[in-house]
Amino acid sequence: MEEQVESVGKSFVNYYYHLFDNDRASLSSLYQPTSMLTFEGQKIIGVDNISAKLNQLPFDQCRHMISTVDSQTCSTTGGIVIFVSGSLQLAGEEHHLRFSQMFHLIPQPQGNFFLQNDIFRLNYG
Amino acid sequence: MEEQVESVGKSFVNYYYHLFDNDRASLSSLYQPTSMLTFEGQKIIGVDNISAKLNQLPFDQCRHMISTVDSQTCSTTGGIVIFVSGSLQLAGEEHHLRFSQMFHLIPQPQGNFFLQNDIFRLNYG
Repeated sequence: MEEQVESVGKSFVNYYYHLFDNDRASLSSLYQPTSMLTFEGQKIIGVDNISAKLNQLPFDQCRHMISTVDSQTCSTTGGIVIFVSGSLQLAGEEHHLRFSQMFHLIPQPQGNFFLQNDIFRLNYG
Repeated sequence: MEEQVESVGKSFVNYYYHLFDNDRASLSSLYQPTSMLTFEGQKIIGVDNISAKLNQLPFDQCRHMISTVDSQTCSTTGGIVIFVSGSLQLAGEEHHLRFSQMFHLIPQPQGNFFLQNDIFRLNYG
């Protein structure tokens, strides 16, 4: 079970950043009205507000590179918590920005997952 | 509600690192048999194994300094997810190690919380 969840976590993370870097508007399909995103300390609630935030970030093209992905099941929800570290390169910038992000995926009756919780932070210092 | 959860998250984080830095053995009171800790990529399941891992870390005294705490409710469990960034100073070391950690707290019938999920990573680079 825990080996499977690591594999599901890695697949989700690859999918999420692929969408983010190539078709950011479609990330909205992963969120629901109860979803929350905290982006650099700003808390945003609900799929519509989250989608607006992601599409209004002050950069167009970017590329996420993943360093580590740690996933665990949540026995209470049947969900998965995922912790990612990596770096982010913005178009036209040489330097990479280090970041960490956590996701909490909740299973839906149809069998797929939605993003209940999403917290993003750049790593400074 | 979301202001309250930020406050609960900060209180929990202060309490957790206070125990870690001053009475590490008592951290076991926060975990349950279903709890999981992933520490630098090593997954450990259950309060007994987690407690053994924490008490066998290759340093005795340390001090955690918190930089950011972001907390969200989980509408599915009534729990709280918390994302922390900070730095860690080991006894006798001048340098600080940057870290990120996430916690998923689940409410218990008695009213307090236990740690369902705990993921810790040092930030390199």
